[in-house]
Amino acid sequence: MREKLAQWLDRPLVGQVITGVILFNAVLLGMETAPSIMDRAGHTIELLDKLCLAVFVAEIAAKLVAHGPRFFRNGWNVFDFLIVGIALIPAAQGLSVLRALRILRVLRVVSVAPSLRRVVEGFITALPGMASVFLLMTIIFYIGAVIATKLFGQAFPDWFGDLGLSAYSLFQIMTLESWSMGIVRPVMEIYPYAWAFFVPFILVTTFAVVNLVVGLIVNSMQDAHHADEGERTDAYRDEVLARLEAIETRLSGDASR
Amino acid sequence: MREKLAQWLDRPLVGQVITGVILFNAVLLGMETAPSIMDRAGHTIELLDKLCLAVFVAEIAAKLVAHGPRFFRNGWNVFDFLIVGIALIPAAQGLSVLRALRILRVLRVVSVAPSLRRVVEGFITALPGMASVFLLMTIIFYIGAVIATKLFGQAFPDWFGDLGLSAYSLFQIMTLESWSMGIVRPVMEIYPYAWAFFVPFILVTTFAVVNLVVGLIVNSMQDAHHADEGERTDAYRDEVLARLEAIETRLSGDASR
Amino acid sequence: MREKLAQWLDRPLVGQVITGVILFNAVLLGMETAPSIMDRAGHTIELLDKLCLAVFVAEIAAKLVAHGPRFFRNGWNVFDFLIVGIALIPAAQGLSVLRALRILRVLRVVSVAPSLRRVVEGFITALPGMASVFLLMTIIFYIGAVIATKLFGQAFPDWFGDLGLSAYSLFQIMTLESWSMGIVRPVMEIYPYAWAFFVPFILVTTFAVVNLVVGLIVNSMQDAHHADEGERTDAYRDEVLARLEAIETRLSGDASR
Amino acid sequence: MREKLAQWLDRPLVGQVITGVILFNAVLLGMETAPSIMDRAGHTIELLDKLCLAVFVAEIAAKLVAHGPRFFRNGWNVFDFLIVGIALIPAAQGLSVLRALRILRVLRVVSVAPSLRRVVEGFITALPGMASVFLLMTIIFYIGAVIATKLFGQAFPDWFGDLGLSAYSLFQIMTLESWSMGIVRPVMEIYPYAWAFFVPFILVTTFAVVNLVVGLIVNSMQDAHHADEGERTDAYRDEVLARLEAIETRLSGDASR
Repeated sequence: MREKLAQWLDRPLVGQVITGVILFNAVLLGMETAPSIMDRAGHTIELLDKLCLAVFVAEIAAKLVAHGPRFFRNGWNVFDFLIVGIALIPAAQGLSVLRALRILRVLRVVSVAPSLRRVVEGFITALPGMASVFLLMTIIFYIGAVIATKLFGQAFPDWFGDLGLSAYSLFQIMTLESWSMGIVRPVMEIYPYAWAFFVPFILVTTFAVVNLVVGLIVNSMQDAHHADEGERTDAYRDEVLARLEAIETRLSGDASR
Repeated sequence: MREKLAQWLDRPLVGQVITGVILFNAVLLGMETAPSIMDRAGHTIELLDKLCLAVFVAEIAAKLVAHGPRFFRNGWNVFDFLIVGIALIPAAQGLSVLRALRILRVLRVVSVAPSLRRVVEGFITALPGMASVFLLMTIIFYIGAVIATKLFGQAFPDWFGDLGLSAYSLFQIMTLESWSMGIVRPVMEIYPYAWAFFVPFILVTTFAVVNLVVGLIVNSMQDAHHADEGERTDAYRDEVLARLEAIETRLSGDASR
Repeated sequence: MREKLAQWLDRPLVGQVITGVILFNAVLLGMETAPSIMDRAGHTIELLDKLCLAVFVAEIAAKLVAHGPRFFRNGWNVFDFLIVGIALIPAAQGLSVLRALRILRVLRVVSVAPSLRRVVEGFITALPGMASVFLLMTIIFYIGAVIATKLFGQAFPDWFGDLGLSAYSLFQIMTLESWSMGIVRPVMEIYPYAWAFFVPFILVTTFAVVNLVVGLIVNSMQDAHHADEGERTDAYRDEVLARLEAIETRLSGDASR
Repeated sequence: MREKLAQWLDRPLVGQVITGVILFNAVLLGMETAPSIMDRAGHTIELLDKLCLAVFVAEIAAKLVAHGPRFFRNGWNVFDFLIVGIALIPAAQGLSVLRALRILRVLRVVSVAPSLRRVVEGFITALPGMASVFLLMTIIFYIGAVIATKLFGQAFPDWFGDLGLSAYSLFQIMTLESWSMGIVRPVMEIYPYAWAFFVPFILVTTFAVVNLVVGLIVNSMQDAHHADEGERTDAYRDEVLARLEAIETRLSGDASR
């Protein structure tokens, strides 16, 4: 019984239907943002949306039955489970954020399409190599936020009033958005030496980001080089060594004759 | 007859004349933007422009006759055909956009100059490798636009009033232009937690763009490495293996003697 | 005695306790930025902060005793020494900057965690290779600042009033922040040819920065390639040459028989 | 006589003195920007500046005598000649731009310091590889400027009034500075479909710039790879082939015995 269900779920047609429902649902959720459409066909759209959700719940329930607890060993299954789960939380009580998050269901298209899956898996495998630099960035931001709050917090409560506001402002400064005209020049009118904090901050964080990107490039290149050339080179080297050994053993055979 | 025409069209002189006409036409179209020149010599310029167009039409007609339907198999021919075709649509009725698009004829210089052709062909061959990341970006933008419209659409109709406006604003935010001072800080005055949507959006889209660039670098490097080293390495390896085989056969000849 | 102390300091537990104290101290210094917390528990926090400092001083004193003058041969020890030293300068007299700098102690976490140490060491080893480009950038900035001050200083004293202001404005322009709408367009209203200075400045400095990043990428790639492939390739090559030599000597042995 | 002069000019001490004079002159020209210093010591500074200039003129004259017309074969000599030449043009008549350009003399430090020379030479050798992309960018900018002037010139004469203004505005948009809040949103208020011109323009030019950088990286990597590995690999390969040939000839010698 279980195996049959698993086989049925693996059929291409089932995957295609699910993809179709996801895309149809995406269109529905997009239509919900247009008041003019909602006024005319709001009820129909909500009904269809619930139908789509029902399909997703049925699919995941079927998968759960078919695979049992192994279902949760696959990260993409957990991902689907959570995304559909969000929609089941009773959000009618006005939590508009939860309603808005229903659109995340469109992300299921990623778990369904192998090419997108590979891209996202590539992103995720790149993350651990960036962990130490991220940790360092967090430390730099924490230190920067404490210093900025202490030095400029009283004069500029909107930008550096507490650690959270300072961290946000420093993130803005790191992205170089209006860092000078918007933030540092006004601050320098009161604290003329403020540049001695902000300019090094920009240099350090930009340098860290550049190093992050350089690391990504080097890793991707290594992987590509291995996958691409490694095997052929290994095969060639093995052959050369094997032939050299054969010649040697033949020669020692000659010699011992 | 056809072959003679094809040969005549392939002559360097014909190509040079066409390039000259394209550049002359570019200057004419540039002059059209200056009212002071148009007041004095508007009629002459328009006449010369029509003459240039006539040359292009004649050239393409000749090519069509010479190559027949094979003409459309070459992408650059189709490109030339479309660009000249735009100019033939009767635009006198006031469609100033179509009149402005006539300047696209200057792009014909690309199809005429081999070095520019190669650059553009390089750009185009890079595109398919970026398809999955582009598709992912489209999904992220669609999801982001739906969420932004639902959450902030009512309070900020100019920026997030409908899906189109939201997508444009999110594109602006992805380019980091005035994202904080211009958009997110004003939004945070009404929705204090808006950063929890925008900051992750920036991180995700920037990371995707970085991965796009990394992919481009790795691919270019691979291609360059193959073209450059691959052949020499292959030749060397073939020689080594051939010599080893020769030694072995000679040795087995010795042994069988 | 000394050796025992050195051994005791190298124990994992001691390192863990120090890391714990650093992180606890970081939280304390973060709390100091919140007036509401300081009103209630200011004295306790300052006391705990002094306690943390005492632990750091004790640790460094112990290390100094254990290693003697060799202590200063390790850059990380000097780093720790300076950072803790800053906190010992009597800052009570109102130098709020020195008080704010106490948070730099959190950076000690870097000298304690090997993975972060490696990242920072990677950053530092990358710096010498960038020295010439940095020097060139300094020259370009000095020249740019002198020219900008001479040409635009009188009309725009806030931006180009003296060499320092000009250098800061040029740094802002190099980061592309509001360079046109904020600075160059207003300047062009008085000096219409100002773009002839600023646009080349942007092109040159951006090109220099790009070359800096390209240099970083190439160096990292070289290092990664060597560490990764170099050894295996060397081992293979040595084996091939050794075997060829063995075959040759055996053959000459045959021949001389 | 000539040879002696050339030898004397090549002495390290002469180079060091010249470098010293360049740096001293740089400080003088920097001081000239400060009115307070000029009020007190203006005459002395101008006198010292003329002295520095005299040293440069003497050096270049000596080099001209020593090397004769070969002097102009070296690009750096031409560079020095032009930079010192600028200062000799009588600029007293109020051409403040020419006076400001005297600071370019500091660039002579580049032609004197070998490490800086190598960096600049690296920049210059990278330029030809970028020529086609630059040409393409010029074409794109010309087309963009013509279209923008025709479509938006009348409504926004400050930004798109003529080809020059349009090109400048498009350059600003390419650097992403205030492209949306500053330019495109105001334009869209009159021409709602303006994004259909500007967003593709941004995508195309950014993509071209990215390809420029990718090209730089690939070229640098190739060069580094060749310089670094190429020679060793070639030596190894030559040895392997030579040994294999030796074995073969020995074996055929055996066989023919």
